[in-house]
Amino acid sequence: MEKIRIAVVGYGNIGKFAVQAAEQAPDMEIAGIVRRASSLKKPVPPEIAGYKIVSSIKELEDVDVAVLCIPTLSIPETAMEILSMGINTVDSYDIHGRLWDLKQQLDPVARQNNAVAIISSGWDPGSDSIIRTLLQALVPRGITYTNFGPGMSMGHTVAAKAIDGVKHALSMTIPLGTGVHRRMVYVELEEGAEFEEVERALKADEYFVKDETIVIQVEDVNRLIDMGHGVLIERKGVSGATHNQLLEFKMKINNPALTGQVLISVARASVKQKPGAYTMVEIPVIDLLYGDKENIIKSLV
Amino acid sequence: MEKIRIAVVGYGNIGKFAVQAAEQAPDMEIAGIVRRASSLKKPVPPEIAGYKIVSSIKELEDVDVAVLCIPTLSIPETAMEILSMGINTVDSYDIHGRLWDLKQQLDPVARQNNAVAIISSGWDPGSDSIIRTLLQALVPRGITYTNFGPGMSMGHTVAAKAIDGVKHALSMTIPLGTGVHRRMVYVELEEGAEFEEVERALKADEYFVKDETIVIQVEDVNRLIDMGHGVLIERKGVSGATHNQLLEFKMKINNPALTGQVLISVARASVKQKPGAYTMVEIPVIDLLYGDKENIIKSLV
Repeated sequence: MEKIRIAVVGYGNIGKFAVQAAEQAPDMEIAGIVRRASSLKKPVPPEIAGYKIVSSIKELEDVDVAVLCIPTLSIPETAMEILSMGINTVDSYDIHGRLWDLKQQLDPVARQNNAVAIISSGWDPGSDSIIRTLLQALVPRGITYTNFGPGMSMGHTVAAKAIDGVKHALSMTIPLGTGVHRRMVYVELEEGAEFEEVERALKADEYFVKDETIVIQVEDVNRLIDMGHGVLIERKGVSGATHNQLLEFKMKINNPALTGQVLISVARASVKQKPGAYTMVEIPVIDLLYGDKENIIKSLV
Repeated sequence: MEKIRIAVVGYGNIGKFAVQAAEQAPDMEIAGIVRRASSLKKPVPPEIAGYKIVSSIKELEDVDVAVLCIPTLSIPETAMEILSMGINTVDSYDIHGRLWDLKQQLDPVARQNNAVAIISSGWDPGSDSIIRTLLQALVPRGITYTNFGPGMSMGHTVAAKAIDGVKHALSMTIPLGTGVHRRMVYVELEEGAEFEEVERALKADEYFVKDETIVIQVEDVNRLIDMGHGVLIERKGVSGATHNQLLEFKMKINNPALTGQVLISVARASVKQKPGAYTMVEIPVIDLLYGDKENIIKSLV
């Protein structure tokens, strides 16, 4: 069996877990890891010492799929570049509401270069999107609530760190039910910073202004950080003319580990699609799995 | 917009709810209802008096999809017949372990006649199969438990009724955790039947012999019947190299109403597939929904 050759692009929080997931996949091999030039000057992390580490994907051979583990805002440009080389991309672009635009942007490039892009392949958007779509098919009338947490929000943490006077921060997302969330923000202040001022600026920030936000000053933010996260998706509604159909989906997970795994399962699905750009809901779920269809259908379905 | 014309084949428990679901679908219209010749002699149920009711699908015009609401054992033959006419079929064939064979049987007929068959489109097999497949993609190593109930098992109820001396029966499936179930069987006896003998025969029946089975004699089974059912699918396992990822999916639902709705959502998906036979895990979930892709992706994903 020819193995799917994976390039992991970016070796931060998510990239580390994507490498681990690819190592566990019997049908994959790691072609190499692409890092920023500045990171290449630092000592190589021991767990990836056996891999080719490069600053451009062009230095790697026969890459089938590039798994983009880079900040969301860099994804569109990087994906375009890599698709232009005829290499599939998967990413976990996470700006809800802008997925359609990214799909439209990548689709012609993918088609022209006989490649496949699967965007927003994390857990939300991503696998949670599959759940929400399925729940709507089962219960077409009703309301779906997606309740996140308790867990660390990467986006809100970055926003909190950007506030003047904040040295280090952690923003926790706390579910209050019916899709409403509280933000618990733990901050370590820079010397001379006024807590009241930081608190005021943070609560006025666009990331926090719409939610109940509680800011707490701590000595050492690092001692609070845990990568556990969770979600509860609930839908109550009507199948046909029958009310009170109750459905829910729940996870308690290591956040970057799940994201890394989703990226790798989706990388596998990418080699089974026709050229073009897709979101996860446009991909048959069976394509995410290793193994032949007959065995999967006989054992699992 | 041209509507998808649906023929509901069979008007029992499931057919009734399939009609209701089709009536609620903005993109569908009911071409007619196919019933056994013997049912056509009886008074027409008032809720379907406005529809064409026939004994053969050949009497209906321009049918796009036939929704098969007939006993599982009749599905293969009926599906073959209808596919031969170039009409799509969807069914909720529910013999786990035989889906692959049915798919193989229908696939060439569907292809030759430019039609689509989507088999086993209920909730289990069906939507639960999508959940189990997705959970395995998120957490490739681990065990998935599917716990059914509490709720009425149609198959076990039929099996109980077939035991000598049983006038009427109800078999309830009770989840005991880790995919183990108890069968609570309520029986109304025929005159002169011995309870101990019925109990012994029932516990030895192939439907019951493997599970803990408790048989209870009652005066009137009908007073116990409720179509509510449920399922809890649990998976705990490993994403990449990270253990203790916890996932679960839960439903509390009216059983035939959900099955009828799934059939209708899948009927919609059938018109979006290339000719051939599929299980639900081979269909992108977005195809189950009404509306255009752009809106769905913008609002839901």
